[in-house]
Amino acid sequence: MKFRASKQELSKHIQIAQRAVSSRTTMQILEGLLLIAKDNTLTLIGTDTDLTIISTMACIVEEEGEVVVNSRLFGDIIRKLEDSFVDITLKDLNLNIVCKNSDFNINCQSSKEFPRNLNFEDKGSFTMKEEDLKEAIRKTTFAVSIEETRKIFTGVFMDCKEDISFVALDGFRMARERIAISTEPSESIIPANHLNELQKILGSGDVKITIGERKILFETNNTKIYSTLYSGEYFNYKDLIRKSHTTEVKINREMFQTSIERASLLAKEERSNLIKLNIADNRVKISSNTEIGNVEEVLECEINGPGLDIAFNSKYLLDGIKIMDEDEIVLNFTDSINPLIINEKSYTYLVLPVRLAN
Amino acid sequence: MKFRASKQELSKHIQIAQRAVSSRTTMQILEGLLLIAKDNTLTLIGTDTDLTIISTMACIVEEEGEVVVNSRLFGDIIRKLEDSFVDITLKDLNLNIVCKNSDFNINCQSSKEFPRNLNFEDKGSFTMKEEDLKEAIRKTTFAVSIEETRKIFTGVFMDCKEDISFVALDGFRMARERIAISTEPSESIIPANHLNELQKILGSGDVKITIGERKILFETNNTKIYSTLYSGEYFNYKDLIRKSHTTEVKINREMFQTSIERASLLAKEERSNLIKLNIADNRVKISSNTEIGNVEEVLECEINGPGLDIAFNSKYLLDGIKIMDEDEIVLNFTDSINPLIINEKSYTYLVLPVRLAN
Repeated sequence: MKFRASKQELSKHIQIAQRAVSSRTTMQILEGLLLIAKDNTLTLIGTDTDLTIISTMACIVEEEGEVVVNSRLFGDIIRKLEDSFVDITLKDLNLNIVCKNSDFNINCQSSKEFPRNLNFEDKGSFTMKEEDLKEAIRKTTFAVSIEETRKIFTGVFMDCKEDISFVALDGFRMARERIAISTEPSESIIPANHLNELQKILGSGDVKITIGERKILFETNNTKIYSTLYSGEYFNYKDLIRKSHTTEVKINREMFQTSIERASLLAKEERSNLIKLNIADNRVKISSNTEIGNVEEVLECEINGPGLDIAFNSKYLLDGIKIMDEDEIVLNFTDSINPLIINEKSYTYLVLPVRLAN
Repeated sequence: MKFRASKQELSKHIQIAQRAVSSRTTMQILEGLLLIAKDNTLTLIGTDTDLTIISTMACIVEEEGEVVVNSRLFGDIIRKLEDSFVDITLKDLNLNIVCKNSDFNINCQSSKEFPRNLNFEDKGSFTMKEEDLKEAIRKTTFAVSIEETRKIFTGVFMDCKEDISFVALDGFRMARERIAISTEPSESIIPANHLNELQKILGSGDVKITIGERKILFETNNTKIYSTLYSGEYFNYKDLIRKSHTTEVKINREMFQTSIERASLLAKEERSNLIKLNIADNRVKISSNTEIGNVEEVLECEINGPGLDIAFNSKYLLDGIKIMDEDEIVLNFTDSINPLIINEKSYTYLVLPVRLAN
């Protein structure tokens, strides 16, 4: 194997493929990137066997070949080189890297043992804007469960019907982002950590999504990302989304957020995060009582419907409000035991209240 | 106690006094800031008993008084308030904080138990630019010892004679910054961690330094910083600074730095950090051989004197070169077993080589 590549391009593509490489693996081969030089193209493959990222770039190939090189070390070396062309030559599992005044030789592994089981049964595909997918990931993955005991809820449910819904829930709150694309009906549960890596790779073009039996494939310009899917029955989230409400509160989003943040300061010290909302007389009183002290915040708002008292874990409330964009939001309540629902364009966020004794 | 203060000013001064408050203290009173409202001035005092910071600011005092409030909580609350005036009232150890729509009540501690032993025997003082002191701290503290067994070497030696030398050494390298101010002769060993906190407080005015028997006092505009001193005999650092050299190497500092950084990538993996320099024929060869591979960097330079081979722990070499400012530096050698000395204006950095078998 012998090729010449631009240092900056090479560094960029290593960073992409590297996202699938786990630092905690016990299999040495999985600490590596598979490099394949062929047809004036360099292909870089990183995998932890659940997530596989394949990135391709143009380069000048003088001699075809492939090898597995330690991902972190290779990435560090290339990143630190001067901005110029890099000449890479393989000889008996010794990779020689030459760039300007630098001359590296590093020991590599044979590509034979590198896992390449990308059998993929295509069950249909569709295309969306990379920016829409990024937004859907940003607005949902934070709400997945962190309990590893019910694996499927650590994933994001992609529900394709008349449109595409990305849904995350953890028993305390639910987040749903809809994208108006009509596709063949399908249901997939995608690991949230894979989506978070994908989010960092996505740019501003189009992404093609192909659904397989146990895998899903995301394809952008020069990159393919294969993620395994969780199997199992997802929660019937639609039943959670109440259509009619009794009390609507129109409030300035930023002021509401900072008031909750302040009111949480005392509750945070005690790790309860409990805050109370008293809604009446066109104002919301946010309060918290703890051993260290108490706090009361009063905010003007527009109330339609009867007043009410309701309590929340402030963290769950804040997580959703923080990622919204509008100046004003509408809080939809029915009573003190049913969820608060906030809709913002294609986004729905739902938080369960904390039930208080009396 | 009752006073009104600007939220931004108050927040700024809490952050300053807070720097002396340790988060790891077992004495609850030391988690607090002492607030003293008197003569339209608020004084904020934080201490861990070794480092004490006193910050003062103007405010409107309606009723004099003092109290100890949890430093982190008070800081978090004030920082999160809206930018406006804050009204603070103390009643039976309950501190009421009102600002716009926010109303906090927090439990406080009596100021009686707060340590205030600031007896200080003035043994002379002098003034320097805050920026000069900041620079001296930046260029020395990184080189102090991290071994707690010989406490005094975890401090910076301030040697006042014809000028003021700030000196740090740890047995592997030595850093010295000189400031051209003539003072009464004195020797103080100041804990490096206190200097690092001081560095964050210093601005662009003047700082008055007063030396006491077991303490040192730094005074800026509105802030007094008292630091305890280490007692003991410091190393006779001047003997280390060789005056004549046999080989001088003039080299581009940035290129030398990045070449060492690259050459260290392999050695870092093995945690040895060992790099070798071969100096001859108007070029420096930097190399490293490890089990993972090897690297060679070649840099042009101007050599006066005989060539030589010498080895270093790259970390110690880099630490010093990184904080220098000039485009070109001169490396001064005598042989492969004596220290490398680099001078840059008022700064001297010295690194001991690693002796290699044969």
